[in-house]
Amino acid sequence: MIHAATWKHDHLELLDQTRLPEVTRYLECRRIEEIFEAIQSLRVRGAPLIGITAAYGLYLGLRELVVPSRAALVQAAQEKSAYLAAARPTAVNLFWALQTVRQQLDASAETDVQVLKDRVLQLAIELHEDDRRRCEAIAEQGQEVVPAQARILTHCNAGALATGGIGTALGVILKAHLDGKQVQVFADETRPVLQGARLTMWELAANGIPAQLICDNMAAALMQQRKVDLVLVGADRIAADGSVANKIGTYGLAVLAKYHKVPFYVAAPLSTFDLAASTGRAIPIEIRAEAEVRSVFGKCPITMPEAKCWNPAFDVTPPELITGIITDKGIIGPPYAQSIARILAD
Amino acid sequence: MIHAATWKHDHLELLDQTRLPEVTRYLECRRIEEIFEAIQSLRVRGAPLIGITAAYGLYLGLRELVVPSRAALVQAAQEKSAYLAAARPTAVNLFWALQTVRQQLDASAETDVQVLKDRVLQLAIELHEDDRRRCEAIAEQGQEVVPAQARILTHCNAGALATGGIGTALGVILKAHLDGKQVQVFADETRPVLQGARLTMWELAANGIPAQLICDNMAAALMQQRKVDLVLVGADRIAADGSVANKIGTYGLAVLAKYHKVPFYVAAPLSTFDLAASTGRAIPIEIRAEAEVRSVFGKCPITMPEAKCWNPAFDVTPPELITGIITDKGIIGPPYAQSIARILAD
Repeated sequence: MIHAATWKHDHLELLDQTRLPEVTRYLECRRIEEIFEAIQSLRVRGAPLIGITAAYGLYLGLRELVVPSRAALVQAAQEKSAYLAAARPTAVNLFWALQTVRQQLDASAETDVQVLKDRVLQLAIELHEDDRRRCEAIAEQGQEVVPAQARILTHCNAGALATGGIGTALGVILKAHLDGKQVQVFADETRPVLQGARLTMWELAANGIPAQLICDNMAAALMQQRKVDLVLVGADRIAADGSVANKIGTYGLAVLAKYHKVPFYVAAPLSTFDLAASTGRAIPIEIRAEAEVRSVFGKCPITMPEAKCWNPAFDVTPPELITGIITDKGIIGPPYAQSIARILAD
Repeated sequence: MIHAATWKHDHLELLDQTRLPEVTRYLECRRIEEIFEAIQSLRVRGAPLIGITAAYGLYLGLRELVVPSRAALVQAAQEKSAYLAAARPTAVNLFWALQTVRQQLDASAETDVQVLKDRVLQLAIELHEDDRRRCEAIAEQGQEVVPAQARILTHCNAGALATGGIGTALGVILKAHLDGKQVQVFADETRPVLQGARLTMWELAANGIPAQLICDNMAAALMQQRKVDLVLVGADRIAADGSVANKIGTYGLAVLAKYHKVPFYVAAPLSTFDLAASTGRAIPIEIRAEAEVRSVFGKCPITMPEAKCWNPAFDVTPPELITGIITDKGIIGPPYAQSIARILAD
């Protein structure tokens, strides 16, 4: 079992995902600044996992703080949440996790500052456990769309390295494999950060699931040759109308899937839905440094140092391209405005 | 002016494109085996240019040969052509150039072996010059589809580094720029060999044309945001029905362009058309080594050494996705079976 983040008595142990698969290095995070850096530098990534990590980070930020009162602690929690939330702008789980912790803090009648701090840690642990359960539920629900023999194309990494459990898209695939289905995976390498090549291929190998790596530009030819039965990806934020923000390249896959009549599924916990974003236009898209495109891992240049690049970390797939969204509470389909409102109200 | 291949009195000087843009290294090729290696290892690439290079290679293979008769030389030319043709299977220009030289050799009444050898060199030089002129003509013809302000997306490299002249797709762009049109280029990096990042960005910079590099998986988001006015690519082989074999990823771009109602143009000399291939299915697609996907330039691994990969070098775009084909004799459109037959008959 892969553990991307583990609370170890007094610190958060994070698997440094920027070094995988070559080096398996763990970071011991004891300070909020280390958590911020780990999220921003993609040492820890994946929408659900950065939410969980940020919740632990909030605790680490409050732990050593000497504050005179409950009000001062609540105020500090607000400031430290804003600090962590600025690490990455697109994944809603980050804000959701921090907000969940702060709401419970606000709602608590407790006045003992130490007890309140302990409560923040407890909430982070609960969020972690909650996500683990949501992954299990998504994996269960997703079986409905995975046939007994399935060639599945996935993008980026939506696995144990992206969540508090077995993953979203990869969780569905893992359960299908464990259930005895004949699953074959094609993993997009996912430039520029190569999460597919580095992380998804590694997770699939660790679980003994047959997989082939392709360059992102090969997905179309794969579908043209009828080698893909379904596309299955994760999500960083889902708007009220069903628009899905996910790793750059997802939208192109959805268009290709539509053209080739291949089902296109998104797997995500309900914590990924953001009703405050009425459509995809309301989701801020993180534009990362041009240098990420100019080289591989910052060490292997692929163009001139002065070359201009465009580097959006995410794109938005409109609801009309999505066959269904696999959530921990069931699979929903179009019309998404209604099905999302209904499932979140339940 | 970029010279990818130059005949220098007694040898062919080739710019080693695998080292660009970091290192500008020229190879002095004096033996046919060096030419074979340069083509197979992508030191020289681009459909028209490998045809020209192979013609010079054929001369180098015959030059030192001691043969008793014209018949023996013709026989040797056939064997050495077959050897060179095996270097890469998809680009038809390779076979076309070798066949053109051999046909002229066959047709000649000359019996002096030395004169015949000199004639082979002369033919290679003529093919080179012929391609230079074809590039100029394509650039001229292509202006019809490039508006006064144009944001153009291109894939791989179809420039001076791919031809005997200013290029096909990039030739059209260069002429538009020199004519004073406001041209902006988006270059797909073109994994796995990164011809877009390494070669196209370098050529565009050398010509002072504004350009931005994107990862292949960003093209869809670019079109979604209405930032592309047209797509312009080269071709390695065009079948009688208008199916275009070109660098892997071209087909996906064509599907995306169709979906976003962006015109999709192919620029290629008539030597790229292969009437022997009635449809795209008749074009053999080169499958290259998995190792090319597993790492960047063979030195920067991106996944586990044992990861399985799929690495087709080309894909086939069906005619229904192509707005027009810009040739040296004019722009042709659908129905392609008719327009191709007509233009080749002229």
